[in-house]
Amino acid sequence: MALERASSRVLPSGATAREFDKALKAFAAAIGDANVITSDEELQSYRDPFAFASADPNEFAPSAAVRPGSVEEIRAIVKVANEFKIPLWVVSRGKNLGYGGAAPRVAGSVTIDLGRMNRIIEVNEEFCYAVVEPGVTFFDLYEHIRAHELKLWVSVPALGWGSVIGNALDRGVGYTPYGEHSNNICGMEVVLPNGELIRTGMGALSRGKTWHAFKHGYGPTVDGLFLQSNLGIVTKAGMWLMPRPDFFVACDLQFERESDLEQIVDTTGRLRREDIIQNTAVLSNAVRLISRLGTREKWFQGDGAAPDDVVQNKLREMRLGAWNLRFAIYGPEELAEGRLKIAKDAFAAIPGSRFESKKWDVRAHTPEEFTAAIGSESVQAGVPSLFALEVLKYRGEDGGHIGFSPILAPSGKEAAKLANLVGRTCHEHGFDYYGGFSFGFRHLWSVMMILYDKKNNEHRVQVDRLFRKLVKEAGELGFAEYRAHVEYMDLVGDPYDFNGHALRRFTETLKDAVDPNGILAPGKQGIWPKAMRGKGNGRAGD
Amino acid sequence: MALERASSRVLPSGATAREFDKALKAFAAAIGDANVITSDEELQSYRDPFAFASADPNEFAPSAAVRPGSVEEIRAIVKVANEFKIPLWVVSRGKNLGYGGAAPRVAGSVTIDLGRMNRIIEVNEEFCYAVVEPGVTFFDLYEHIRAHELKLWVSVPALGWGSVIGNALDRGVGYTPYGEHSNNICGMEVVLPNGELIRTGMGALSRGKTWHAFKHGYGPTVDGLFLQSNLGIVTKAGMWLMPRPDFFVACDLQFERESDLEQIVDTTGRLRREDIIQNTAVLSNAVRLISRLGTREKWFQGDGAAPDDVVQNKLREMRLGAWNLRFAIYGPEELAEGRLKIAKDAFAAIPGSRFESKKWDVRAHTPEEFTAAIGSESVQAGVPSLFALEVLKYRGEDGGHIGFSPILAPSGKEAAKLANLVGRTCHEHGFDYYGGFSFGFRHLWSVMMILYDKKNNEHRVQVDRLFRKLVKEAGELGFAEYRAHVEYMDLVGDPYDFNGHALRRFTETLKDAVDPNGILAPGKQGIWPKAMRGKGNGRAGD
Repeated sequence: MALERASSRVLPSGATAREFDKALKAFAAAIGDANVITSDEELQSYRDPFAFASADPNEFAPSAAVRPGSVEEIRAIVKVANEFKIPLWVVSRGKNLGYGGAAPRVAGSVTIDLGRMNRIIEVNEEFCYAVVEPGVTFFDLYEHIRAHELKLWVSVPALGWGSVIGNALDRGVGYTPYGEHSNNICGMEVVLPNGELIRTGMGALSRGKTWHAFKHGYGPTVDGLFLQSNLGIVTKAGMWLMPRPDFFVACDLQFERESDLEQIVDTTGRLRREDIIQNTAVLSNAVRLISRLGTREKWFQGDGAAPDDVVQNKLREMRLGAWNLRFAIYGPEELAEGRLKIAKDAFAAIPGSRFESKKWDVRAHTPEEFTAAIGSESVQAGVPSLFALEVLKYRGEDGGHIGFSPILAPSGKEAAKLANLVGRTCHEHGFDYYGGFSFGFRHLWSVMMILYDKKNNEHRVQVDRLFRKLVKEAGELGFAEYRAHVEYMDLVGDPYDFNGHALRRFTETLKDAVDPNGILAPGKQGIWPKAMRGKGNGRAGD
Repeated sequence: MALERASSRVLPSGATAREFDKALKAFAAAIGDANVITSDEELQSYRDPFAFASADPNEFAPSAAVRPGSVEEIRAIVKVANEFKIPLWVVSRGKNLGYGGAAPRVAGSVTIDLGRMNRIIEVNEEFCYAVVEPGVTFFDLYEHIRAHELKLWVSVPALGWGSVIGNALDRGVGYTPYGEHSNNICGMEVVLPNGELIRTGMGALSRGKTWHAFKHGYGPTVDGLFLQSNLGIVTKAGMWLMPRPDFFVACDLQFERESDLEQIVDTTGRLRREDIIQNTAVLSNAVRLISRLGTREKWFQGDGAAPDDVVQNKLREMRLGAWNLRFAIYGPEELAEGRLKIAKDAFAAIPGSRFESKKWDVRAHTPEEFTAAIGSESVQAGVPSLFALEVLKYRGEDGGHIGFSPILAPSGKEAAKLANLVGRTCHEHGFDYYGGFSFGFRHLWSVMMILYDKKNNEHRVQVDRLFRKLVKEAGELGFAEYRAHVEYMDLVGDPYDFNGHALRRFTETLKDAVDPNGILAPGKQGIWPKAMRGKGNGRAGD
């Protein structure tokens, strides 16, 4: 259904085909014909592979895509967009799966695909950072470091094909001690919506050597403005990398009872704050691990959520816990052993818990050697993979997914409250509760995926209902998401309502100042330019 | 000299006495007569106690001060200032010694003194944070935690009398693992220049419990905008605190030769990146430690810089190294011992180095007990003091100081280059080189203080010449300051010149959007509102 009208030409709102063709010519003059993409066929890859909620298949479709090869070409594109008042959308690798992929918020946007800008500009082994362009993927950076035998580790998200910068800008998550990716950014270069070029922090010192050493500068720090943002286009950034540790200890814990959740979260949260657990620990319920085996039909043939007893049987067969925790320990052997002992003692207080660990000397093994043994958790050792794609087949070969990922305080009580709400609501809508929590330094990301069959219309209707219900009911309990699918960008912003959405009004004031024509990614994360605010863009009133 | 014309009334530029009196009445109506300060005598404390560079003693003097007691009163003050177009300047405790104290950038500003807003709103022991108002000092927060026997440590700067929030907003530095104070801020409440009130990050969720758990939110992160800023007035903030460690190991190192600097910096920087040294390690040259003994006259009676042989004698007498490093180790005993061993091994590679350490069980001692033994470095255990004031007497009982504190990459070569420049330039201008480096996670703060006699006119002339020369010559080598005295705020911004000061233009675009009347702290950190840009404010042309 989503594609049946997709061949009709999508234009920016208000533009005639003639005007738009003029703009396309101007883009082509700036960056070359070959880098302006207009054919329906090629534009398919700039749509959301998992689109489901919208009745109009073109609601999140681009009119064209442009592929600049340099900062100057980006500046030229921005100038043309201002001249013709054409909305732009920016993707680095466009792999933002579950959040809309490469699809723009506004129909008819021209998508700037930064994939050609894939230079690894510098990797500094002594000071442990890389400077990369947005087209560089986690695989690229990992392979570069391996090829040059540098003693550095990259932090990678569940899927390694995405952009290092794009992921960090969207506040993506990895699983090493450098797992809060937006916190690794140190120094950006940004094209503003008016075509102006800035370098942030110490990068403003044209003679300086500290752009990627210190995150601040002199006066206000503006870098945060370019996260989940339509205020500028990041064209390169410094990313802090982790010095390669001497030892790596993979820790794998299982807990018997669902009701252990509170104690697990409280213990893990405390160990994170005390820096005993250094990385993004991942807590998973049974369905989350079972789903990696592929399609559910192999062990349950019914519709709707799998019954508890069926899940319990599968869980016992796979020797999984009701909750399963994985983290790793990094560093010199004496510190690694100390951390391991403290962590073991702490979790031993939870009756029936099992704690397994395996230690590797990183200096004597390739990452592939020791990560092969830990499968999907190779990301804890900074080894990128595509293993996580497996789960897509859970409800059918042509599977889609969308996540509901609110932020929590690292509190067992809060985690239990949310898990109850999400689990119950998933079941009511016919989906298993694929869930868990990832442990940031001082917060939790709630992890939950709605896995569905893209060919199943009933699934698509229910996913939408389920997602909307979760945003509303979790929001009433004080939980809200830190990230959003393009189809829900306004909705997810609704609970951020202090003083009549004053923070959003402030950000929109900034938006109007730096992008008076409102050309850059209108509506991204619910931030609209003046001319488009309140015009049926689906957000609740202020 | 600085005070001879100070009794003449200072008014905001362009305001008549009659208009200004109207504004004062409006302020008084909003916050009460008693909280509007206009007498010359009381206003002295809102001037810079160390003023020296300006020929006009009133150039950095306020016209009045207002002392709001609540957020609503701040909003009311901002409204009056907009109505009368009166520049405001904001201080928390006004203790920004060496950076102008409470003095405003623009003569005739009305200073908002937030000292009455001194509530400790919450200290959360489990999740390790405090929520405070700007009037809360380090002493206040420390004593609150001690009184309630909470297992938390505050990170404190050299002087404990300042504001926890004010210090963090100015990017102040402390000496525990939480020593980069601006990085501890998690969640702000801010009055904007138009009187609007926002809460940042997860604080925008009116029902949420994660305001002080997660630094980001949904969409752009705006918090950095309020550092060293004239874009808003922070009225409360969450500050992350350190869980009290079980053990504390004070480490004290001495190095024989000045030429050891490169190796010391490279070693310490690497141990910081590898998280072996957890806190802000402090490297000091001999003069820096000798100056703590009080006035120099006791051991050298000449003018100008003390000759090398005299300093060398003093150094041997005090058993100091040419360079002296202090850091501490924090945590469970097994990890503390592991870190200590690794650090000892690393520094043993520097010939002639001495390494002393002393370990305390924090659970068995009050902080005062074990910090008494380490004197000025009690700040490494989060114990606030005023010990650092001692150095002011070095060149005379009525001493002043100003620092030159550029940011460096954590590179021995860079540190040596800067130390050579600064040392030579200090000597040329008749001052000893009081110097060293503080180690951030991925950068160095260069530490240098020009200590002078406030009564000595020749000193004051030379301090100004020395400071200007350092900004210029260090700037040419790529070093620039992260902070500035009000008298030099434009000057210090000059080297941040990439693309014709594009970053400053961007920040000024934001300034104009959120503060169209330009009332809030015009000129702070070189950011001017539209109407005041380029009007003899002393900054170099764009």
